[in-house]
Amino acid sequence: MSHQSLYIDFYEITMAYTYFKEHLLDVEATFDMFVRKIPDQGGYIVVNGLHDLIERIENFKFEPDHIEYLRSTNMFDEAFLTYLSTLKLNLTMTAMPEGTIAFANEPLITVTGPLIQAQLIETLLLASINYPTLVATKARRISTAAKNKAVVEFGARRAHGFDAAVAGARAAIIGGFKATSNTLAAFTHQLPLSGTLAHSYIQMHDSEYEAFLSYARINPTKTVLLVDTYDTLNSGVPNAIKVAKDYLIPNGYTLFAIGLDSGDLAYLSKKARKMLDEAGLHDTIIIASNSLDEHLIMNMDAQGAQIDSYGIGEAFITSKSSPVISGVYKLVEIKKKDQVIPKIKLSDNIEKVTNPAHKKVVRFFDQQGMAMADVLFLKNEVIPLNGFDLFDPISPWKRKWIENYHIKEMHEVIYDQGKLVYELPSLDKIKVYAQSQFESIWPEVTRLVNPSIYYVDLSQGLYDLRQELITQSITKK
Amino acid sequence: MSHQSLYIDFYEITMAYTYFKEHLLDVEATFDMFVRKIPDQGGYIVVNGLHDLIERIENFKFEPDHIEYLRSTNMFDEAFLTYLSTLKLNLTMTAMPEGTIAFANEPLITVTGPLIQAQLIETLLLASINYPTLVATKARRISTAAKNKAVVEFGARRAHGFDAAVAGARAAIIGGFKATSNTLAAFTHQLPLSGTLAHSYIQMHDSEYEAFLSYARINPTKTVLLVDTYDTLNSGVPNAIKVAKDYLIPNGYTLFAIGLDSGDLAYLSKKARKMLDEAGLHDTIIIASNSLDEHLIMNMDAQGAQIDSYGIGEAFITSKSSPVISGVYKLVEIKKKDQVIPKIKLSDNIEKVTNPAHKKVVRFFDQQGMAMADVLFLKNEVIPLNGFDLFDPISPWKRKWIENYHIKEMHEVIYDQGKLVYELPSLDKIKVYAQSQFESIWPEVTRLVNPSIYYVDLSQGLYDLRQELITQSITKK
Repeated sequence: MSHQSLYIDFYEITMAYTYFKEHLLDVEATFDMFVRKIPDQGGYIVVNGLHDLIERIENFKFEPDHIEYLRSTNMFDEAFLTYLSTLKLNLTMTAMPEGTIAFANEPLITVTGPLIQAQLIETLLLASINYPTLVATKARRISTAAKNKAVVEFGARRAHGFDAAVAGARAAIIGGFKATSNTLAAFTHQLPLSGTLAHSYIQMHDSEYEAFLSYARINPTKTVLLVDTYDTLNSGVPNAIKVAKDYLIPNGYTLFAIGLDSGDLAYLSKKARKMLDEAGLHDTIIIASNSLDEHLIMNMDAQGAQIDSYGIGEAFITSKSSPVISGVYKLVEIKKKDQVIPKIKLSDNIEKVTNPAHKKVVRFFDQQGMAMADVLFLKNEVIPLNGFDLFDPISPWKRKWIENYHIKEMHEVIYDQGKLVYELPSLDKIKVYAQSQFESIWPEVTRLVNPSIYYVDLSQGLYDLRQELITQSITKK
Repeated sequence: MSHQSLYIDFYEITMAYTYFKEHLLDVEATFDMFVRKIPDQGGYIVVNGLHDLIERIENFKFEPDHIEYLRSTNMFDEAFLTYLSTLKLNLTMTAMPEGTIAFANEPLITVTGPLIQAQLIETLLLASINYPTLVATKARRISTAAKNKAVVEFGARRAHGFDAAVAGARAAIIGGFKATSNTLAAFTHQLPLSGTLAHSYIQMHDSEYEAFLSYARINPTKTVLLVDTYDTLNSGVPNAIKVAKDYLIPNGYTLFAIGLDSGDLAYLSKKARKMLDEAGLHDTIIIASNSLDEHLIMNMDAQGAQIDSYGIGEAFITSKSSPVISGVYKLVEIKKKDQVIPKIKLSDNIEKVTNPAHKKVVRFFDQQGMAMADVLFLKNEVIPLNGFDLFDPISPWKRKWIENYHIKEMHEVIYDQGKLVYELPSLDKIKVYAQSQFESIWPEVTRLVNPSIYYVDLSQGLYDLRQELITQSITKK
């Protein structure tokens, strides 16, 4: 039995109780999940986490010991506890598929259904989406810097917990990495698995040469030798070359790779490449790791580092340079006795005012299939197919007429009144989709530093509604 | 069935296979787990995570589907897979108890036993200790800044996964927080639970006043009203005061608290305090949240902010300003045919050279019970009780003679050849121990910024051994 249904900020239960006591069981609510700010001051995010979210919603249930626990707080009456113990979610949910490139302030997920239910899953939903999206985005950034070089995920020991490591390894593959070192993640999600040896293996043996020789004898088809335990250029690389010549080549094998895990990797890789080439080991690749991130990779590459494959640990698995993604879940509409009432949350800061009402996210593509803008429409608004007047919701006088576009609605229906109607694609398909999504975005938007801001605009109908609600709220308070 | 035993960096399995093929099953190894650098450039860490580590070691077992998975990689022979499928850990492990204040480069945990076993648990051990230690340390830093004010953990939605959130909430309590908002964590570890209402509750009602009144009616004994949905000082606080006067006070209750979750919390809290006091609500407390961390708390406090309780989310649960702790697990000794061989790992950087051999960590306290220094001794070295010559292992000419001290060995025995011999204290006891540990450290060392460096020195015996091994390694390579 899983206890994950209790992954609830307690205020959701106290609010649910209050709604229950207020007899608001029939009220329907719509919540949007969106990201306020893009991590690393980047231009885009890679949506991820639907896999875990679906699994958790499928298993959502208050078990008898959960009810007993809630009873022990002495804060709820028996009618409410009975209500919870028999609660079955019948929410409707739409979402962007995993691997979608998305932007700030547009709904990634929209949830509609009974108020109490929609409120109770807030934290479960946010925690299921936030971290996987954060690290899928980080993986894509690192893959961008690594260009055609293979990247392997090494973060298990520095992950913030086991499920972060497993979700992170899956996100890494969606974001373009080639493999993971995490056996549990590979087992759980059928990911390519990678692993060779550590410094302790070298230390276990009487000498570095003996360690290398012994490892090569037992793993001759894909020998990787870690050359930095004692002295990379004076001991590690020469011993690796010696083992290749003494044992691997005479027996019909080759030295697959050497590994660098400390020191200045740009300098050492160039020197090591030269030594390997001079020994005729042109096919032996160089794998490098040690607190690498997208910026260090790009800088070393610009300096001509001779690295064929990167191992990335903490910088990826914790999104070290930006470990928080500001995913939020906000009420946008309620339906009370068949009356639909859009809702807004004001803020001192105009950019933080929420976009009210149940909406749809529409992406406009040009003739070449490149994304031009996303526009939020009211759910039932008709999307003009022949020409559209884009305008900036912060500076609405900035307008741009576009035509000759094709469009795509970005949300798929995941749940229809509690019924799972979406079939999660295989990870291979998600990878292909994620790649094609990335390729549909201009490189100016995906640049790692100071990217161009992609347009996320409002339809005229939504803009007008928003202005009306702002005025109403100000006069009503 | 749990799959957590597969939480292994794959290189540990490929190394284990190589050791198996080399017939090194009888070799014993000793590994130290230690932290290289203290997060946030702080002066100390709060050790944590033993609870999860013990649970995972107790359940460590390769299940049939794990073996089948490893078989499917085509990298291992059947003899090895059979060996793994029947493997029972019989390691010996010593560790600092949870809540211990510790420092860089001293063993937090020492593992001794069959080489393959000690190697296989590397990643599981590191991941069990790293994150809980990181956030227990962060919690203690935040508690230090908050002084006598209550701190509540609000991080579930921004945690890197569910087990991070649960372990993080537990760590928060060990680090001095008063409660968590995470229902699953409170349920799992019997933590104090806290939760009230969100902006969506206010938005759900026709007006802020009606929302407050309705909430107060249903939760009169501990009414908390969130006052920043529309306009804190012009609407939220006046409406809260009105509900106190219209309903709570006439019915014999009081307004327990108001909550601020946006805007300039220092400014708003001072203004709100004045309004509450003028209305006679002197006992109503002010709770504040919104991306707070230790530095913001200290700064606002210095400005006279009138905040009685802090809610801390992302800055704590991700240790946002320093999301990685550099916990490592290094081979320090092997025993081969009854011969004990201490091991060292060199590095270009003298501070990164490991401390060889099986050691013990001894803390020296002065007459007042304040910690003066930690010294690493060889396991069987005698500790002088009447006078001791401290010296800096990086600059060994810096020496300091101390006497009139008492000492404590900092490790407890957790496992004795596979048998769990340690009884984990209750969380209440751990809290008390953590507090007393913190109070035994000079405030110069626990200062949040630019702390004094606490001495972690080597015994003369260990220092001499280390120098000898460095010389040996250089000549041998």
